[in-house]
Amino acid sequence: MSKAAIHEVSTKFFHTGSAEEPFLLASGESLPGVTVAYETYGKLNATKSNAILLFHALSGSQHAAGTNTVVEGVGARWTEDCHHGWWDLFIGPDKALDTRRYFVICANYLGGCYGSSGPTSTDPRTGRPFGRDFPAVRTCDVVASQLALLDHLGIEKLHAVIGSSVGGLLAINLATLHPDRVKIVIPVATGCRTTVLTRLTLFEQVLAIENDPHFSGGDYAQGGPEPEYGLALARMISHKTFVHLDAIERRARQDLKQGGDTLSWYRVQHNVESYMLHQGKKFVKRFDANTYLRIADMWLRFDPLRDAGVDSYEDLFARSRAAGQHYLVFSIDSDFCFYPEEQAEMVGYLEKAGVSSMHITVHSDKGHDSFLLEPQLYTPHLAYTLEGRWEKASVDRRGPEVE
Amino acid sequence: MSKAAIHEVSTKFFHTGSAEEPFLLASGESLPGVTVAYETYGKLNATKSNAILLFHALSGSQHAAGTNTVVEGVGARWTEDCHHGWWDLFIGPDKALDTRRYFVICANYLGGCYGSSGPTSTDPRTGRPFGRDFPAVRTCDVVASQLALLDHLGIEKLHAVIGSSVGGLLAINLATLHPDRVKIVIPVATGCRTTVLTRLTLFEQVLAIENDPHFSGGDYAQGGPEPEYGLALARMISHKTFVHLDAIERRARQDLKQGGDTLSWYRVQHNVESYMLHQGKKFVKRFDANTYLRIADMWLRFDPLRDAGVDSYEDLFARSRAAGQHYLVFSIDSDFCFYPEEQAEMVGYLEKAGVSSMHITVHSDKGHDSFLLEPQLYTPHLAYTLEGRWEKASVDRRGPEVE
Repeated sequence: MSKAAIHEVSTKFFHTGSAEEPFLLASGESLPGVTVAYETYGKLNATKSNAILLFHALSGSQHAAGTNTVVEGVGARWTEDCHHGWWDLFIGPDKALDTRRYFVICANYLGGCYGSSGPTSTDPRTGRPFGRDFPAVRTCDVVASQLALLDHLGIEKLHAVIGSSVGGLLAINLATLHPDRVKIVIPVATGCRTTVLTRLTLFEQVLAIENDPHFSGGDYAQGGPEPEYGLALARMISHKTFVHLDAIERRARQDLKQGGDTLSWYRVQHNVESYMLHQGKKFVKRFDANTYLRIADMWLRFDPLRDAGVDSYEDLFARSRAAGQHYLVFSIDSDFCFYPEEQAEMVGYLEKAGVSSMHITVHSDKGHDSFLLEPQLYTPHLAYTLEGRWEKASVDRRGPEVE
Repeated sequence: MSKAAIHEVSTKFFHTGSAEEPFLLASGESLPGVTVAYETYGKLNATKSNAILLFHALSGSQHAAGTNTVVEGVGARWTEDCHHGWWDLFIGPDKALDTRRYFVICANYLGGCYGSSGPTSTDPRTGRPFGRDFPAVRTCDVVASQLALLDHLGIEKLHAVIGSSVGGLLAINLATLHPDRVKIVIPVATGCRTTVLTRLTLFEQVLAIENDPHFSGGDYAQGGPEPEYGLALARMISHKTFVHLDAIERRARQDLKQGGDTLSWYRVQHNVESYMLHQGKKFVKRFDANTYLRIADMWLRFDPLRDAGVDSYEDLFARSRAAGQHYLVFSIDSDFCFYPEEQAEMVGYLEKAGVSSMHITVHSDKGHDSFLLEPQLYTPHLAYTLEGRWEKASVDRRGPEVE
């Protein structure tokens, strides 16, 4: 195995299904085959027992580590902001996800805009982009598309599944729907149900996009006028939950004031306003509004109980216990997107169900985004847990007793 | 004075300025005269010393008490939701603002849509509604328009000024800009500066309206297609800060599911979503998008230091001390619009400046809206302070000393 850091990487594509054997979705709709865009880091061992599946967050991609300047079919949407792997600080030799030990896989969501089948990809039945006709997807559909990829790679059981933010919902969904396919589950800054506040914030984002004069029900032309302000507003609404307000204020002060921010009536004057508008506009260049809607919708409809056919979270996590899974749950004390209370609730269910688990709160002034920025806060526990040392420690505790 | 409760009331109109003597705004712009729509409750005494000025909140009106089914010139926008006075639980014989003792005045903001000069009123120069041409107003302009009304009524010095939420900003602005014109200042669930979170939330609301396909820079026709979804979205964004999330969830469960909520792509399914959309759509019927923008803009630009020409809040409130004002500041522990920290900060400044003040936190599960719904939490302190008993208590404390 290579000891060198990860440099240039490229996205690979896996295809499954066809017009004759469509890919079935939980809603009952189907797709005439799907493509999954993915990257891998490290090497799969002979027993195929060292694989870690990593789910990206809402606006992330399959490109988690190293540098990748071009993704086939994504075109100009693959902006410079995308070139650097979003978890590069966590993946590589001697990092939290040590690529000398593990084979790390990260794939773009089904419905995404970075190479997996989604509203911007071509509908083979019409030769044009799916656009509004791309169906709604659920977390279990995304999970199914990535399990098909694992099948293709010959991986029967993952060493671990890791997901942060929306990625955490997918990690929990995979672990509880298919408990025999993963050993260690690591949800970071996430929750096991959609709270009322999250629902309201997401619904605002849906309306912001739907109400844009260029949205046209999702039938806007690629390259033509896209629902830019609607998507930018959606991004702004969510950005305020991702980044700590103090950090927004600090960054806004440092940023040079952006020009061209005159709206039709309102005049942008405060640097916090122009900073947020700039963030929104920058995001629009690298993302697709229809994909954003699919993911917001997926998040709004997240229901691991329905997917697993159980009535309670205790019953849900009983499936994890039966499979002997271990959970490492991370909270960020300053998180305003997935509040620490949400992870505490989840850990309460895990404990009730008798699942082996560990709950760690990191203290940060960066808010939800800490999981992208501060590897030092997560690396020790990630490495320790991935090495299986929590098992040893538990065994050791049963050793010499001291009064 | 009447002992009967307040029943039917009607809105009165005060006009000041003209094309020849325009009403000057702080921005340097001017209006060819302005109209102030107002209501009064109780009787002004012979010495004109019993007047209380009450500032309404963002979407409120001059109609604070009793019943008023028609306001001249407001037409269909005066929906049933407006008919009942918004502070009727607080104003009347034996209520917090006892109309047997006090003469209560409440006026619609300059820039408003309930009878005062605003975007929906007729521009005498063109004979058409001002629309987008109605200038931006600042809190000090609203204050100036209402002081002109007080002059007209012959009231030199108010017994008290009371304002909740955005109304509180106006109360503070009046008290510190014109310290000799008011004795008691009662800011409820408000702050003395616009925080970053409030700024972001307001800016989102501005964009929601500006980006509506029917906004057209504010040039939409009255009665024609108005920026409904944009205004509804703005209302939803703010509604979530006004009403406690638990209450939203509770009300959403109780409400029958609203029909007709299919957006162009997204399908509304959860009752919290349809409840919020229903709230937004209901609001659109009774409010004007240009007025909403004017008030959001005013709130975003609120700066009592600039208005008073001072550099610090200590200097600002030194003006209150010099005039011998007394402040009664209310916090609501579950307030997510103006957080309790904001009132604590204000009281800190008041104390530093040596202003007589009292700070009361009410405990409620209703969030910011508590100030509209729970008179029992506010009435004792309101009545006690308005009766001047805080003065007596202070004097009494200097009485017999006990070791």
